[in-house]
Amino acid sequence: MSLFLVLDILGTIAFATSGALTAMHKKLDIFGIFIIGFVTAIGGGTLRDVLTGSTPVIWMEQTFYIYTIGVTVLLAIFFRRYLNRLRKSLFLFDTIGLGVFTITGVETGVQNGLDPIVSIALGAMTGTFGGVIRDTLCNEIPVIFRKEIYATACIIGALAYVILYNVGVNRDFLYIATSLTVITIRLIVVRYHISLPSFYVSNGNEEE
Amino acid sequence: MSLFLVLDILGTIAFATSGALTAMHKKLDIFGIFIIGFVTAIGGGTLRDVLTGSTPVIWMEQTFYIYTIGVTVLLAIFFRRYLNRLRKSLFLFDTIGLGVFTITGVETGVQNGLDPIVSIALGAMTGTFGGVIRDTLCNEIPVIFRKEIYATACIIGALAYVILYNVGVNRDFLYIATSLTVITIRLIVVRYHISLPSFYVSNGNEEE
Amino acid sequence: MSLFLVLDILGTIAFATSGALTAMHKKLDIFGIFIIGFVTAIGGGTLRDVLTGSTPVIWMEQTFYIYTIGVTVLLAIFFRRYLNRLRKSLFLFDTIGLGVFTITGVETGVQNGLDPIVSIALGAMTGTFGGVIRDTLCNEIPVIFRKEIYATACIIGALAYVILYNVGVNRDFLYIATSLTVITIRLIVVRYHISLPSFYVSNGNEEE
Repeated sequence: MSLFLVLDILGTIAFATSGALTAMHKKLDIFGIFIIGFVTAIGGGTLRDVLTGSTPVIWMEQTFYIYTIGVTVLLAIFFRRYLNRLRKSLFLFDTIGLGVFTITGVETGVQNGLDPIVSIALGAMTGTFGGVIRDTLCNEIPVIFRKEIYATACIIGALAYVILYNVGVNRDFLYIATSLTVITIRLIVVRYHISLPSFYVSNGNEEE
Repeated sequence: MSLFLVLDILGTIAFATSGALTAMHKKLDIFGIFIIGFVTAIGGGTLRDVLTGSTPVIWMEQTFYIYTIGVTVLLAIFFRRYLNRLRKSLFLFDTIGLGVFTITGVETGVQNGLDPIVSIALGAMTGTFGGVIRDTLCNEIPVIFRKEIYATACIIGALAYVILYNVGVNRDFLYIATSLTVITIRLIVVRYHISLPSFYVSNGNEEE
Repeated sequence: MSLFLVLDILGTIAFATSGALTAMHKKLDIFGIFIIGFVTAIGGGTLRDVLTGSTPVIWMEQTFYIYTIGVTVLLAIFFRRYLNRLRKSLFLFDTIGLGVFTITGVETGVQNGLDPIVSIALGAMTGTFGGVIRDTLCNEIPVIFRKEIYATACIIGALAYVILYNVGVNRDFLYIATSLTVITIRLIVVRYHISLPSFYVSNGNEEE
């Protein structure tokens, strides 16, 4: 089993768990919990495949994703109280998922000969879109727009991938360096409560 | 006209009506009513086609869907008070739509040689996604995540389809058996107020 | 540089600005502002390409869209107070965008040999969908369903395109006539506060 596949499975498990926990918190029924777990884990990759025209999308051809997510959500339901207390340790899994899915996105772009900036955008979308769908379905403004440096970590990681790829490094090193870039940024950001600036303006309705 | 086409048109009409009623309840303007009627009726099939790469999507090639939905929404607006009182009888149409669209999804999967569990997922997504888009656009948590056994009926119906298909039954029987499975489950569930369990956990924010 | 490209760039700039202003009003961080600016500008065209199977989608192949949007959002952030006061003049840009994106949608349909009603629907979706995604991600009912004649202007513009195309007019005239149709309708509608009727019915929950 390759390093990449190990990371990919870890990422899938982490995202499925994060989706299931959000759904339980929102008091969804068991079907809703499975669906939100599924879209959180698979949403980014599905968007990547649809936008690049790689259909049927990946989880239709590689069914181990479905089984992995199914088992993960079941376990998340059984151990929900325990997981909820462990949320801080889950953060690491979530970050691994972010790093891995960023890699699959940027790699798809590079292998299709797309422009580097497009590959980076694909990496960031693949890493974050599952969470965007999760929050949209749960009727909240996606957390990545409001909190901490999240997608920015993907963008910098994807940039590292593109640079290293063009330098011509070994593939395993490429994966590890990209993942570590994303993970390190997230750890520093959360440790020191760094957040991006926002630029509020009134909506000007009173002037219309 | 085949049995399947009759059911398909009935399902399209029922879903367009349900979308239009939701939009009127939300006080959307007439354009919003048409759009919500349209996406409710066509959302599931569009997702099915996009994920499997069958593009242009079906309603672009078979325009009778657009005309059917247009006429249905117009009639729904004219007879809105009447329809609103009849909501219980509409329930049967809605359930027919659910059954039929589940069939088109699972059939697409089977005919593309996808894994049975993927075909079942496609069936459930095709049956339910129109309602998910409807509720998301109307700024509500999708009803299928919160209320009654809805998508679960699709999943069991799709499972029946896959089993019967592999047994090798006649196609009309296949359609009728799948539809009846979905419809029967829905009727029993609503009659006896059966719902799926949910597993609430606090979001743990206080511990972060 | 062709007339069409000039209009297309103007439309992209206007939509990116409108997205960025909405995101700033919602207090999103700088990454959220870029994402909402991006999806507002590119959402309609992406949907058009995905539904018709033209993948990789346009902004992946023509990267000037990404750079245009990036620079626009940066400028929108720097000049946010100024832009906010100028919202009425922005309205014209927004309307140009609406007109241009409607053209790219209807043109895609016509060139793929799709039915006229499908081409018109594609035009309206391409013109309006960016705004729908923007509002959905910002957790609001899309403004086009609630306010003024917006998508209707696209539909009438797209209809004009289809008619003139079949009459066989010069392409530049075709673009200008379609744009002017959309723009004129919007100007009249906003000037005279014309809105579409809505048809409220209670949701009938009390009768279920």
